[in-house]
Amino acid sequence: MNPESLAWNERLVGVPGGAARLDTPALVLDLDAFEANLAQMAAFARAQGVKLRPHAKTHKSVTVARRQLEAGEVVGFCCAKLGEAEALARGGIDGILLTAPVRGESKLGRLLALHRALRELFVVVEDPENVRELAAAFAGADRPLAVLVVVDVGSHRFGVTSLEAAVELGRLVAAQPGLELRGIQGYAGRIQHLRSYEERAAATRAVNAQLAAIRDAFRAAGLPCPIVTGSGTGTHDVDGRLGVFTELQVGSYPFMDVDYLACDLTGDGTACFRPALFVWTRVVSNRHRGFVTTDAGSKCFAMDGPAPLVAAGAPPGSTYAMFGDQFGRIELPPGHDGLPIGTLVRCIAPHCDPTVNLWDHLVAVRGDGVEAIWPIEGRGAVA
Amino acid sequence: MNPESLAWNERLVGVPGGAARLDTPALVLDLDAFEANLAQMAAFARAQGVKLRPHAKTHKSVTVARRQLEAGEVVGFCCAKLGEAEALARGGIDGILLTAPVRGESKLGRLLALHRALRELFVVVEDPENVRELAAAFAGADRPLAVLVVVDVGSHRFGVTSLEAAVELGRLVAAQPGLELRGIQGYAGRIQHLRSYEERAAATRAVNAQLAAIRDAFRAAGLPCPIVTGSGTGTHDVDGRLGVFTELQVGSYPFMDVDYLACDLTGDGTACFRPALFVWTRVVSNRHRGFVTTDAGSKCFAMDGPAPLVAAGAPPGSTYAMFGDQFGRIELPPGHDGLPIGTLVRCIAPHCDPTVNLWDHLVAVRGDGVEAIWPIEGRGAVA
Repeated sequence: MNPESLAWNERLVGVPGGAARLDTPALVLDLDAFEANLAQMAAFARAQGVKLRPHAKTHKSVTVARRQLEAGEVVGFCCAKLGEAEALARGGIDGILLTAPVRGESKLGRLLALHRALRELFVVVEDPENVRELAAAFAGADRPLAVLVVVDVGSHRFGVTSLEAAVELGRLVAAQPGLELRGIQGYAGRIQHLRSYEERAAATRAVNAQLAAIRDAFRAAGLPCPIVTGSGTGTHDVDGRLGVFTELQVGSYPFMDVDYLACDLTGDGTACFRPALFVWTRVVSNRHRGFVTTDAGSKCFAMDGPAPLVAAGAPPGSTYAMFGDQFGRIELPPGHDGLPIGTLVRCIAPHCDPTVNLWDHLVAVRGDGVEAIWPIEGRGAVA
Repeated sequence: MNPESLAWNERLVGVPGGAARLDTPALVLDLDAFEANLAQMAAFARAQGVKLRPHAKTHKSVTVARRQLEAGEVVGFCCAKLGEAEALARGGIDGILLTAPVRGESKLGRLLALHRALRELFVVVEDPENVRELAAAFAGADRPLAVLVVVDVGSHRFGVTSLEAAVELGRLVAAQPGLELRGIQGYAGRIQHLRSYEERAAATRAVNAQLAAIRDAFRAAGLPCPIVTGSGTGTHDVDGRLGVFTELQVGSYPFMDVDYLACDLTGDGTACFRPALFVWTRVVSNRHRGFVTTDAGSKCFAMDGPAPLVAAGAPPGSTYAMFGDQFGRIELPPGHDGLPIGTLVRCIAPHCDPTVNLWDHLVAVRGDGVEAIWPIEGRGAVA
């Protein structure tokens, strides 16, 4: 938490030209780009007749979730961890799907409490022992817990690995009074970030075929399978057209990031989403030719992927590198010696999910004004 | 924030054997190792007649700072950002040195407020414009602001680059009624992590010589220089013996991390500090031979340096890799097929400062019991 910095920035909300005076570093959302991204994804879903279940691991924010709902075609949200779901539930968000199995003593009690608090809560299961734990825990619940069988579509992180195992597990779920079988999940994380549309399309066609076969086997076995959930921002354009997924677990599209900007998401090279998530940083030292020191380091940017991209405030061709945990170093292109102290530099978030997870607030900016400051309620809710 | 997970873990405080039941993932401090590290550094400082000004950018925690004070030889604390200092000040910590220049409209007002709240606050300066800004801001203060001239000892991140510039800036500071010149700072971040003691020693001897010459030039010019501050955990053993630094800005020693464990800090290969900071994670999926999925990913560990080291709970030779933002993959050594669901695996923090910055609480464990849970008040205070 950074209460004094927050207080300064809150005083700028609604002040004409206030954005230029923001205390930095700050995590900034470009509202025009953000809203265009939400509208674009909703229009795509509407056109294809598919629903959206946005993944809240990206934003962990009640306000962003509400905006996604308002944009349309959203049937609920995904969360990777119970803590994220609890944070959203406190803010009135419902229809939450926990995309990884919930295991262990400390988690089951929390899952029961969350189930009581929500109208609709889904979990995924991958093995019989977990099904029996859940069935025992929910035997006395006022209504059954919604359950999906999670299918391993290639990453081997979670999921049943064969059609037969999926059907067998589906039967076990369907036989438990405390549980209600609702379908299957298959999330192919590893293919979302393939650069070329055709490579991604080929990979996700195989995933769609695998899931369609399991869905058909469920039906043949008399098991319900109204939900086939998965996909992501990377493969949404292919998955939304194939008709297998009933809902798309798209995460990054409201924000975008350096990594996704390098992907051709539409197959024709057009950018369907715009970068909306930035870290704003200022020049704090400029005593050397060719580079400056800024006030944002590895405590401001996720360092697991590409470097942040300098989008504005420094000459084109400038590059950002970490300069210790708390500072950045911006290399200027040839011919540019320096930048004045206080220069505001806007960097596109390198990898949006873990970058957002470093910040307690999102400063929502439109043009040169600060429109609002949104809390990131689920920040750090990793358990 | 993760309130439900925190509530579960708080109920385990003081419960015999409670540590094994912790909700995971969790950031865990081994109190025995932590206290041994504090005692070791205090004993070293006492023996060498040098003081400590621990860098709070590592821990951002009021409780850790208090423990450092109690261990002895501590004259105050360092903070990299105003927000960290404000968080510590709210908890009653005093004698704070801001180790990077404070610039800009939003920061100066906060600096004045912090100065009013503390008995002693130090800033560093590197250029005349900043000195004049500070002098104007503190002209009406009830007592002067303590100022150190920051010297560039090689990283080029901050600092004056010549002896003459240092003396000239010192003169300017000394001439301002609102400011009080107290000495110099030179922090050689880039050499702290050199693996070999001799390489580190050679590099820091040059830094010591550079700072000694500036200190002597200050005295020859009639300028006060009671403080020469800098050093770090990596070079403390050399710097503490050379007699130039009056205080050591040691940061990582209470916790240690994978990176520092690879450094020979004493020159004779003995480990003067023990790993005290861990992320505890549990096996949540084990459906494949040779590896398991755990519940801690890149939202739990800093990813800017080495990988977390598996210290306990998995067979020797097991290695950790990120498996998405929220999960880990532990590769088991040959001959080990799997681990049961729920197995508690303890990983040594990879790079301590940015790892701590991901967490809101530190679970303090002694043996198999949970002794306390400490808030990390300065987490995310990057502005």
